Amino acid sequence: MTRVYGDPDAFAIEALAGFAAAYAEHVRLVPGGVVRATPGAAGKVSVVVGGGSGHYPAFAGYVGYGLADAAVAGDVFASPSSQTIVDVARAADRGGGVVLGFGNYAGDLLNFGLAAKHLNDDGVRAATIAVTDDVASAGPDDRASRRGVAGDLVVFKVAGAAAEQGLTFDDVVEIAGLANDRTRTFGVAFSGCTLPGKSTPLFSLDPGRMGLGLGIHGEPGISEREVVPADELADLLVELLVAEAPAGSGGRVAAILNGLGGTKYEELFVLWHHLGQRFARYGLDVVAPAVGELVTSLDMAGCSLTLAWLDDELELLWTAAADAPAFMRGPARPTGHGHGGEQPQQSAPAGGASDAALAPSPIDAVNVGQADPRSRRAAEYVLVGAVAVAEALERDEDELGALDAIAGDGDHGQGMRRGAASGRDEAIRLVDAGAGASTVLRGVGRAWGARAGGTSGALWGAMLSAAADALSDDDAPDARVVADAVAAACDALIEHGGASVGDKTIVDAIVPFSERLRSRIDEGAALAEAWSDAARSAQTAADRTANLRPKRGRARPLGERSLGHPDPGATSFATVVATITPLLAG
Amino acid sequence: MTRVYGDPDAFAIEALAGFAAAYAEHVRLVPGGVVRATPGAAGKVSVVVGGGSGHYPAFAGYVGYGLADAAVAGDVFASPSSQTIVDVARAADRGGGVVLGFGNYAGDLLNFGLAAKHLNDDGVRAATIAVTDDVASAGPDDRASRRGVAGDLVVFKVAGAAAEQGLTFDDVVEIAGLANDRTRTFGVAFSGCTLPGKSTPLFSLDPGRMGLGLGIHGEPGISEREVVPADELADLLVELLVAEAPAGSGGRVAAILNGLGGTKYEELFVLWHHLGQRFARYGLDVVAPAVGELVTSLDMAGCSLTLAWLDDELELLWTAAADAPAFMRGPARPTGHGHGGEQPQQSAPAGGASDAALAPSPIDAVNVGQADPRSRRAAEYVLVGAVAVAEALERDEDELGALDAIAGDGDHGQGMRRGAASGRDEAIRLVDAGAGASTVLRGVGRAWGARAGGTSGALWGAMLSAAADALSDDDAPDARVVADAVAAACDALIEHGGASVGDKTIVDAIVPFSERLRSRIDEGAALAEAWSDAARSAQTAADRTANLRPKRGRARPLGERSLGHPDPGATSFATVVATITPLLAG
Repeated sequence: MTRVYGDPDAFAIEALAGFAAAYAEHVRLVPGGVVRATPGAAGKVSVVVGGGSGHYPAFAGYVGYGLADAAVAGDVFASPSSQTIVDVARAADRGGGVVLGFGNYAGDLLNFGLAAKHLNDDGVRAATIAVTDDVASAGPDDRASRRGVAGDLVVFKVAGAAAEQGLTFDDVVEIAGLANDRTRTFGVAFSGCTLPGKSTPLFSLDPGRMGLGLGIHGEPGISEREVVPADELADLLVELLVAEAPAGSGGRVAAILNGLGGTKYEELFVLWHHLGQRFARYGLDVVAPAVGELVTSLDMAGCSLTLAWLDDELELLWTAAADAPAFMRGPARPTGHGHGGEQPQQSAPAGGASDAALAPSPIDAVNVGQADPRSRRAAEYVLVGAVAVAEALERDEDELGALDAIAGDGDHGQGMRRGAASGRDEAIRLVDAGAGASTVLRGVGRAWGARAGGTSGALWGAMLSAAADALSDDDAPDARVVADAVAAACDALIEHGGASVGDKTIVDAIVPFSERLRSRIDEGAALAEAWSDAARSAQTAADRTANLRPKRGRARPLGERSLGHPDPGATSFATVVATITPLLAG
Repeated sequence: MTRVYGDPDAFAIEALAGFAAAYAEHVRLVPGGVVRATPGAAGKVSVVVGGGSGHYPAFAGYVGYGLADAAVAGDVFASPSSQTIVDVARAADRGGGVVLGFGNYAGDLLNFGLAAKHLNDDGVRAATIAVTDDVASAGPDDRASRRGVAGDLVVFKVAGAAAEQGLTFDDVVEIAGLANDRTRTFGVAFSGCTLPGKSTPLFSLDPGRMGLGLGIHGEPGISEREVVPADELADLLVELLVAEAPAGSGGRVAAILNGLGGTKYEELFVLWHHLGQRFARYGLDVVAPAVGELVTSLDMAGCSLTLAWLDDELELLWTAAADAPAFMRGPARPTGHGHGGEQPQQSAPAGGASDAALAPSPIDAVNVGQADPRSRRAAEYVLVGAVAVAEALERDEDELGALDAIAGDGDHGQGMRRGAASGRDEAIRLVDAGAGASTVLRGVGRAWGARAGGTSGALWGAMLSAAADALSDDDAPDARVVADAVAAACDALIEHGGASVGDKTIVDAIVPFSERLRSRIDEGAALAEAWSDAARSAQTAADRTANLRPKRGRARPLGERSLGHPDPGATSFATVVATITPLLAG
């Protein structure tokens, strides 16, 4: 959905003007396009690229040293007119002639073709390069008919570097043609895009479906299927492109993993991680990959993989320095979007990052030491409780997440589930190792704090560790010791959390729980009975907290609870203690 | 909607691994985060930033020379655990101590706070900077409670540059604190984001509504209202922030226009164009602005404006060289995202680009010359026709666009409407100037070709110009001359378009139209009658073309019509000639 615009008819030109303003040191605005703010050397061949708008960074984002000399911008998804192309090309010409680069679409073929004719008639040497990398748009027997998509960038980068290095007009045209012959792209789409001023997308896909080879303007693809997991998507993309490898090409490839606009960076990186594990398998050495949004289609969701099989000259030009707003490479070491190192072997292994690198932080091992048999029996109660709590929090994950989403970031259920599961696993390990109750509970706390993350992870880690310090490995805890442990957890929570009763946090539940537990035990009640009463008090407090209307006003130090919305901490605490109740009765 | 992932629990870590692979020369993967591949100078202060995942380029994209030394990545929208932060900080420490930078959220406050405590206990000097730039999350009287959003980047950039320049630990902490005190952000959201593995967004807004001050995890904002045009949005953002200007600050500001993920580059540039016109009005000199996706929230649609009121030292640090994957500035001249020139006055004026720069290419003026009165009368028929056609194509714009969207990019209706309107305006100008029929029609063709863009613009420009050449300014065209003109247009179309009858393009309609017109006139029919018959033939052919089933197979040179779907050219041609019929009868 496109939402930020004024006059829809002015969208493309206003976007171009705003771009030129943001990158004033890179580009200068001219009617219908942008040219380099600092022109290239006199006499050099100029590379002028373009097409419709709505594909940023294609095409204006490519204008800069080592890449394009100018970009022509048509209206959204519409080719610029031949006259506009001629005007921009004249502004970019340094006396060495103009190479016009664009994707192979009808309007662009016509208008850039007419422009080249006009320029040549007027004595400005001009040639066109129509990029044809989209393998989905025509068969291998008819590559000249294919559409141009993300492969534009490979061809433009090679042509731009060649022109920067002073190659002749004919040589720039020839090497750009070679780059196009060696470049293949295949893409998938998950959703359509919406033109400025329109309320419905240009095309659409059913939820959970993806279009294979769908064009960046919604042109028909080759098929449609269910969305697949990232590893299967990686298989699909690599296999399709490897099958299209140019005859007699080696294993060194330039690669672009392109996001179409609605597919986010992290998704692309997840896919790149899975792709990296496959490149090596197919004998591909990836050189200076580009992972990001490089040829978009407004807010269209989808991505494409581009591979360009390199020879020595193409590799030199692909990795050469560039300094455009959306594509930068340092001279010494490639940097910026599209960066990945001149040593391609750096990326394939890293792509398949070692398990060690992917493992979470280790938990500081607790020292099991010697434990009295009575404490070891108590430790088994701790283990049974840890198992039950992990079960309960897995059951309630979505409910707690939904409660959290009202005012927070919706991750509370996930964090509690992960923390409890880690605590359970550590409890199992420690009980098997013969640890006492204090040690096992300390281990549960450390595992919970280390693995859960978020607010609750830190708080539960601190609470459980404080409770563990109140227990001992030398004897079985009696009811008073349990009450002391709960009180210690309560104090630790208040110390770390900075909240008080009434702030609608976990404090609202643990304080009445601790007080009720203490008073019933002081009255001589058995632990099971006292705990049961206290758990009910916690539940009552949690329900009251959850139902409190948000009070207007300032955000509190617990920033995610801003504007006084209740957080789910009281509810999850009540769930945990209620889960323990029947175990004590048994 | 997040669609590319494998195991949702592994999303954040797989994204981190893929990122590290794509930027292997910038960063090295460690458990829970990334550190610079090339460490900073021994003894320098290390700046370690982080928070939950799902905000790329926050935080891993900031790791590099002149910015962060390391980034810690929690799970999606969840703070990393204190232990993970400690581990990453240890890997980044160069002996000068560690400054931990993060946004002011409960989980991050807790975990980074605990990490700083552990580090200091272990003899690694550590301090925390919680960024509090979001003016919507708390009142000016309670700035310490505010959330951290896109202002993170200003504070981290200043701290990173200070550390790179060798400032002491205390000085880095102090200048980072000053940057935070001077930084304000206000954002709007249009839609929520969806966590990996979830099918419904974390929160949602009604279509056409926007949330003011909504947090990047969906935390409550200050109000909700209808989406407003870009210029009003620019007013809203600038006014809110200017009202928050720090006391005694000057007019030089760092600026970030941030996209949250679902709002695209072109939309941000359109908004920047409108903002640029306002900065000057408020006496703001924008220094090295950053316009792009810099702190995102998965696929959340929305944007925010950040202003940081600079003093000389802050300006020096904000504009200092940086080389991180997602934020680069050259030493000589700022480059890359966030670039905009050390001379701020370059951006404000460019922001409000001059009308001249925004005007479309001028139309080559046709020479009116001398025209015979009979040809001038004929020219008035051309004008009447141009007016009627412009009306008809404006009426049919959406219908033609929808037909185009089946196989093309949906812009045909828009292009025809714009071309016809430009042709009409030029006809009016030329008839007023006393031009003959040939000159007026030539002017219509040039205006249409120059302003319409796209495929149809180029083709109609060529057709009308060819027809004009067959007319004369010396006498009134008779029926045979009109038939010659139509035949000339038909030849020009086939020459430029490269399509033949049966390719389901405009050619399918103009050929029978031209042939029928010629044959009826040869039979002695009056022009009105012959044209009427020919128009019916064109309509019949257009209907047949539009109803043809797509034939499978290769894309044709008219790439956007790939896979044989009919294009709307035949339909729009039939509309144009049918519009002329009644005028001839009159």
